[in-house]
Amino acid sequence: MSDLLETVRGLAKKTESKILMVVLDGVGGLPLTPGGDTELAAARTPNLDALAQESQLGLVELVGAGLTPGSGPGHLSLFGYDPLKYVVGRGALSAVGIGVKLNSGDVAVRGNFATLDPNRLILDRRAGRPSDEKNVEIVTRLRAAISEIDGIPVEIYTESEHRFVVVFRAPEGQTLGANISDVDPQGTGVQPMTAVPGDPSSDRTAALVNAFVARAEIALRDEPQVNGVLFRGYSDVPHFPSFADAYGLTAACIASYPMYKGLASLVGMDVLHVEGHEDALDGKVQALRENWAKYDFFYFHVKKTDSTGEDGDFAEKVHKIELFDELLPQLLELRPDVLAIVGDHSTPSKLRSHSWHPVPLLIRSEYGRWDHAARYTEEEAQRGSLGLRKGTDVMPLLMANALKLNKYGA
Amino acid sequence: MSDLLETVRGLAKKTESKILMVVLDGVGGLPLTPGGDTELAAARTPNLDALAQESQLGLVELVGAGLTPGSGPGHLSLFGYDPLKYVVGRGALSAVGIGVKLNSGDVAVRGNFATLDPNRLILDRRAGRPSDEKNVEIVTRLRAAISEIDGIPVEIYTESEHRFVVVFRAPEGQTLGANISDVDPQGTGVQPMTAVPGDPSSDRTAALVNAFVARAEIALRDEPQVNGVLFRGYSDVPHFPSFADAYGLTAACIASYPMYKGLASLVGMDVLHVEGHEDALDGKVQALRENWAKYDFFYFHVKKTDSTGEDGDFAEKVHKIELFDELLPQLLELRPDVLAIVGDHSTPSKLRSHSWHPVPLLIRSEYGRWDHAARYTEEEAQRGSLGLRKGTDVMPLLMANALKLNKYGA
Repeated sequence: MSDLLETVRGLAKKTESKILMVVLDGVGGLPLTPGGDTELAAARTPNLDALAQESQLGLVELVGAGLTPGSGPGHLSLFGYDPLKYVVGRGALSAVGIGVKLNSGDVAVRGNFATLDPNRLILDRRAGRPSDEKNVEIVTRLRAAISEIDGIPVEIYTESEHRFVVVFRAPEGQTLGANISDVDPQGTGVQPMTAVPGDPSSDRTAALVNAFVARAEIALRDEPQVNGVLFRGYSDVPHFPSFADAYGLTAACIASYPMYKGLASLVGMDVLHVEGHEDALDGKVQALRENWAKYDFFYFHVKKTDSTGEDGDFAEKVHKIELFDELLPQLLELRPDVLAIVGDHSTPSKLRSHSWHPVPLLIRSEYGRWDHAARYTEEEAQRGSLGLRKGTDVMPLLMANALKLNKYGA
Repeated sequence: MSDLLETVRGLAKKTESKILMVVLDGVGGLPLTPGGDTELAAARTPNLDALAQESQLGLVELVGAGLTPGSGPGHLSLFGYDPLKYVVGRGALSAVGIGVKLNSGDVAVRGNFATLDPNRLILDRRAGRPSDEKNVEIVTRLRAAISEIDGIPVEIYTESEHRFVVVFRAPEGQTLGANISDVDPQGTGVQPMTAVPGDPSSDRTAALVNAFVARAEIALRDEPQVNGVLFRGYSDVPHFPSFADAYGLTAACIASYPMYKGLASLVGMDVLHVEGHEDALDGKVQALRENWAKYDFFYFHVKKTDSTGEDGDFAEKVHKIELFDELLPQLLELRPDVLAIVGDHSTPSKLRSHSWHPVPLLIRSEYGRWDHAARYTEEEAQRGSLGLRKGTDVMPLLMANALKLNKYGA
């Protein structure tokens, strides 16, 4: 546990105040041309502008200088967990994201369906991107064929298209290691690789993985396209101090996409049901309103600001920011004592990917030193009174502004 | 020892230059209403303004983001000691604050006089707040009754009102542990609790504490009001690398209140005599002037900027800032090579308590990059060229500006 989190844990106190942390996924951007506007600057955001004028602004670096955060590290940092210390494998993230409860000692693995030729040479590492329905059908067949290997329970879950997740359940009191080489050679025209353990505690897991590959190929041998499996991204189960314990908060997650729900549940937040499809902003506001009395802390996730950036669609990212702006008054109506607006990383349309650029942080509370910011933009945030900070500073600042931290030392 | 302090120690060199660090206790503030002035901004401070115009400004976070520093951690940070690493208990602080020299292995404990009924039930945890004279009288009685327990020398010191300090002196080469549960139940209508050791090294100390409680009650049994003792805040003696050694400085403390003198003596500064009562600003200036030739470094403490903030008295805090401003020319007359003005934490009148908000730092030296600051205020400091920094950065910056640090590496 990082010193700051440990220190905050010892100082946290229960109060009536409520904290709302809005994560606009990938909200930070870049201008397309020198001197141009970023997506935030280009957006018409009267509500965010008014909010910025009564808030404190700053910039947040989620992992470190020049480091582009994945969604996991970006969120962990916002939740106060040093992402260089708390590492969550993609397999574990996928598993918890689809609602699978992982226990200490288990191993979760991400799998891809692949197309193999009769000599086991890989023709397509994604098996022609099968439909989700086909995925479910294949997973059902695999479940029937492989429920356990060598006495170890094996669980297989559908994710989407060519993606699935396998969980190997450790026997009570035992630990399966996750230090195993990839089955996926990341190329075609070669055979799947044999998994090799990287340490003695992973010997058994490697054997399980190799047995799974062999038995899956037998079970799927009459399939023309989805007839092989590839693995990479093995994760053992990370041990997180509970968010609720660390901060003395009852905490709820309002998100639609599996990974974000998974991250929140990994740190022990309650994941609330959200009505609707995709980003489901209305459903999220409804979930927030209905549960407002029940929790001290809400993590409210908005996804589309990221996906439009990943698509390289500047105008559409601007539009998604404006959609959030339209929804903002409904959040303000609930009168959170502390409201934060922040991103888990930047996703500039210009780069079509996550990026290392710090994200703008806005904190509104009764106890801030107000800035002279006119808007919630990268440029205004850079001049803001909160300065340029680490992502792990965000939670202590929110706790302080909510008057939920005792003094440190006499 | 923090890395920075260790590094600075290796680079420090003796020169003729003099550093004056003025700590305006709790000087950072908040506006009462959005867009309003903080206490510093509201104060009429022509001398500070002129100084700011030829200085560098920045903001300092003493312990960490969102963390509200106690006076101990705040000062230690300013002196260059990472307050998350160097922890001083309240008992040790009280003891050294009244001039008691603690040795390695000793334990210092804070005590309160209490009023007990015939069944030892606590009627008043502060014994009706006796006068300081009564406190001295009781301490004198206790000293006569308890000079040693089980061969361990026991020293009893008066603090004020219901407060006193006990020091258990460890035999040569031995260590008394300080991991003991409280005697003070922090409530009335119940008996004082029996101290329980939390580890084997504290077994003996717990027995000493329990014996002290019993013997004190016997010694005070004919007292109607001050007839019991409660303990909490046990401290062993922290081991600080000496300030003088770390920085190669002869260092003096000019402060009036026990805790600040205690902190300075803990790190090995000479504590100068200050004539006068309470904050005694004139006496402090006199002490500074008289000792100016004798030291390289002066820590000059101004208390009332904090106490007025704690009282929630915005106007009076403004006034205390203005009083310091009036005194400032006398400090400047001494021509310190490096002058710093900083706080050990913020104490906004609005919060009536210490707070987490960064404090403005001003450094005047011949070798700064000047800012365009017009005043010493939170807002100007936030725009300042020194940026937002940790408290432990202050000493290295002062040493550098005094040309007292050699180059790091070839």
